[in-house]
Amino acid sequence: MTGTLYTIGMGPGDPELVTLKAARILAGVPVVAFFAKRGRVGHARSIAASLIGAGAAELRFEYPYTTEIGHDDPQYRVAMDCFYGKSAEAVAAALDGGDDVALLCEGDPFFYGSAMYLFDRLARAYRSETVPGVAGMSGCWSRAGLPMVHGDDVLSILPGTLDEADLVARLSGAHAAVIMKVGRNLEKIRRALELASLIDRAVYVERGTMSGERIVPLRDLVTPTAPYFSMILVPGRQGVR
Amino acid sequence: MTGTLYTIGMGPGDPELVTLKAARILAGVPVVAFFAKRGRVGHARSIAASLIGAGAAELRFEYPYTTEIGHDDPQYRVAMDCFYGKSAEAVAAALDGGDDVALLCEGDPFFYGSAMYLFDRLARAYRSETVPGVAGMSGCWSRAGLPMVHGDDVLSILPGTLDEADLVARLSGAHAAVIMKVGRNLEKIRRALELASLIDRAVYVERGTMSGERIVPLRDLVTPTAPYFSMILVPGRQGVR
Ligand SMILES: C[S@@+](CC[C@H](N)C(=O)[O-])C[C@H]1O[C@@H](n2cnc3c(N)ncnc32)[C@H](O)[C@@H]1O
Ligand SMILES: C[S@@+](CC[C@H](N)C(=O)[O-])C[C@H]1O[C@@H](n2cnc3c(N)ncnc32)[C@H](O)[C@@H]1O
Repeated sequence: MTGTLYTIGMGPGDPELVTLKAARILAGVPVVAFFAKRGRVGHARSIAASLIGAGAAELRFEYPYTTEIGHDDPQYRVAMDCFYGKSAEAVAAALDGGDDVALLCEGDPFFYGSAMYLFDRLARAYRSETVPGVAGMSGCWSRAGLPMVHGDDVLSILPGTLDEADLVARLSGAHAAVIMKVGRNLEKIRRALELASLIDRAVYVERGTMSGERIVPLRDLVTPTAPYFSMILVPGRQGVR
Repeated sequence: MTGTLYTIGMGPGDPELVTLKAARILAGVPVVAFFAKRGRVGHARSIAASLIGAGAAELRFEYPYTTEIGHDDPQYRVAMDCFYGKSAEAVAAALDGGDDVALLCEGDPFFYGSAMYLFDRLARAYRSETVPGVAGMSGCWSRAGLPMVHGDDVLSILPGTLDEADLVARLSGAHAAVIMKVGRNLEKIRRALELASLIDRAVYVERGTMSGERIVPLRDLVTPTAPYFSMILVPGRQGVR
């Protein structure tokens, strides 16, 4: 009998923000799979450190690029397809051998998670269960003390990788917004928030719920770029119901 | 010394989808507060049932209206203001007496949660910590096996209470969408999805992760209304990165 693929959300960073279900599965599963950047432990793996059972085998998939450059390059797509394809094969081999596999993911898996690229390749062929996690944004707005959306408010979740005009158009119609994937897009996002007249409501959160957490009004942030774990929150209308 | 207000997300419904942190706080806190509809246990309270410590006092706040009618009526606003004001006073009295209070909330608190109306009234005056939870939508799209947003996709989260034209306009620009608060808005939402040419991608999820869960393509849903715990998911583009 082949194993089951558990795609598991590990939450925003604080290991206590993992669900009881994720903790139970991680304690018992014989194989744990995760992505990592070159030279790093892997963020989801580090959240799981104290939860993985003794003796579990680990499948570590190292991204072929350490920085996020060249996403538009067709070469990048080919390399990523190949990377995800090979990673999926390694997970499939474990499942074929009868082992259950826990595929770890930051935050919630089906919300911009890399784990989806393996799920998309494996879920039709194997038994599969996805364990939702606390999204990074929920960790961030909770730590910032920012009630985000009340009543009839619309929430727009935007990748900071969109081009400036698109960001401005989408921000202008928003009540509340979350801008993910800030990194090298920070200056562009700042201009878009200025143009949409939202800059004064915007809050920058870096490493929400983790060590090194930083929460400041975006106005007070002077650096031209931001690290990978950062997002911008624009809370909605207060008291709307 | 006054107590601390813990505003706690209880996740989508399955009690195993509560975080380790929420479970730890609930086991130790002397007072638990929650909202409930007339004649009901209270949804967040029922998720917490096995986690609340023996001997904890309970503050049950019963909504003044059992159905969601008349939201536009100024009388409704007055009644709700009064209700939240009185509920906040009861929590404040417990905090003033030195007790920590866990205020329970379905899903994630700062994401359309009623707990925000107490948080808004109390957080400036008392020590306060918000424990994020798995949002209802994360539970729903995980159970539906629907990877929602990849890469550069935008996710629009829309309350079904918006008027039809507004829904159509916002859906037309969306890559992926979640429509919350379906209930009596179902027919209007269906028309809006038709007009935005998204109806064939839409999936209806009722009671996601709970007993009585139901997941069907929206096309196959024939009832004119839906229960409170239901939402509609429109997944984004596949394979975008
Ligand atoms: C590839 S997406 C993964 C999102 C993840 N699946 C989730 O549910 O949050 C990575 C982006 O998530 C955001 N992010 C996730 N966790 C975060 C945290 N704890 N603090 C700040 N940003 C975070 C950042 O914007 C980052 O660029
Ligand atoms: C007042 S909002 C509260 C949202 C909550 N704070 C959250 O994070 O999901 C209530 C709406 O959430 C949605 N909802 C929450 N949990 C759900 C579930 N398990 N299944 C279906 N819908 C759910 C429904 O659309 C419902 O009308």
